[in-house]
Amino acid sequence: MITVALPKGALLKESVSRFLGAGFDFSDVLAPDNRQLMVSSKCGRARALLVRNGDVPVYVAYGQAQLGVVGYDVLKEHQMPVAQLVDLGFGGCRMSVAVKSSSSYQSAAELPPHCRVASKFTHCSREFFDKLDLPVELVHLTGSVELGPITGVAEAIVDLVATGRTLKENGLVAIEDLFYSTARLIGHPLSLRLDRGELQLILDSMSEKANLQNSL
Amino acid sequence: MITVALPKGALLKESVSRFLGAGFDFSDVLAPDNRQLMVSSKCGRARALLVRNGDVPVYVAYGQAQLGVVGYDVLKEHQMPVAQLVDLGFGGCRMSVAVKSSSSYQSAAELPPHCRVASKFTHCSREFFDKLDLPVELVHLTGSVELGPITGVAEAIVDLVATGRTLKENGLVAIEDLFYSTARLIGHPLSLRLDRGELQLILDSMSEKANLQNSL
Repeated sequence: MITVALPKGALLKESVSRFLGAGFDFSDVLAPDNRQLMVSSKCGRARALLVRNGDVPVYVAYGQAQLGVVGYDVLKEHQMPVAQLVDLGFGGCRMSVAVKSSSSYQSAAELPPHCRVASKFTHCSREFFDKLDLPVELVHLTGSVELGPITGVAEAIVDLVATGRTLKENGLVAIEDLFYSTARLIGHPLSLRLDRGELQLILDSMSEKANLQNSL
Repeated sequence: MITVALPKGALLKESVSRFLGAGFDFSDVLAPDNRQLMVSSKCGRARALLVRNGDVPVYVAYGQAQLGVVGYDVLKEHQMPVAQLVDLGFGGCRMSVAVKSSSSYQSAAELPPHCRVASKFTHCSREFFDKLDLPVELVHLTGSVELGPITGVAEAIVDLVATGRTLKENGLVAIEDLFYSTARLIGHPLSLRLDRGELQLILDSMSEKANLQNSL
């Protein structure tokens, strides 16, 4: 029995569609009234765990799921011991530094030393500002990071930006990108080594589709 | 201008009602179509920040909000430098250790040494198991912790239990409580010291109501 960890939220629909392409139908998790956190595929040969984005690498690292789909941002922030297998190409967004539109900062390096930066992604932010050699005080928030500059708790934020609508609505503007994030297929290293072909088939099908899409 | 941080979710409605009792009407945040994260009181003398539970002590610790309402569980987990002012008495729930109903464990001390325990509250859990002198491996999950024992990623969980319905639905049972949590009014220590009476009035009104309710 193959177990895959699927992320709740924005990446779910396309994740289900990619597994469908690989022969596993988990579309039950998309039903609006679905409350189940564990769903069997229609063929009965696999099951999906429906978990939060940040928990996908946990289930895969502990081997409770052999495969998982998760954003690169989560992988970079949490640094779990999982194998990155395929860049699935969807769910694209940028990890960006943003400030108030009314401020004069044009790049992250212009921020004042020791200023406060709010983020859900404090590990990524720390790494980025360390590389810039700019000491900043990171304020860890768990949601609505765009409130940071508005309330004055922070001079800047580091957050995921997809369309830029949330930033705009809150009078913020992105001034620099840390990296570009897309959904990734990840795997449990030991399960991949002990695989008798089943996981490889899924991997092959998904990389083929990803390559095709990336080359378009 | 007084700024208060209100927690999204289960504690919001009663928090708004308590501030209404103290003369500040933030009921606009309860409108189902409300998308604003910052709302002025009807009297215009105060504003509310609508933030996630875990972020309330952050805004208060940094002085961006002078007062806030948050569950004791969050205060215990994050240990921010804020003043606990009033036990508001609502939002009661237990922080409990739970295991599969089919398991034979009757108390936390019976769990096997070095077993895995999944929780969103790893700080509280670490403290609890350290006191028990039981070494456990904590697995940090961000949601749906009840999946832990079902998938086998953990032998037990530590999580908030209100009615116990979620545990029951997932075949789990609580075997021991770490502590009982209720909503607390918290304050920014410096703002309280510099208060010219405004904050004290709110505090008095809220403690009176809380004492009345607690004595019923």
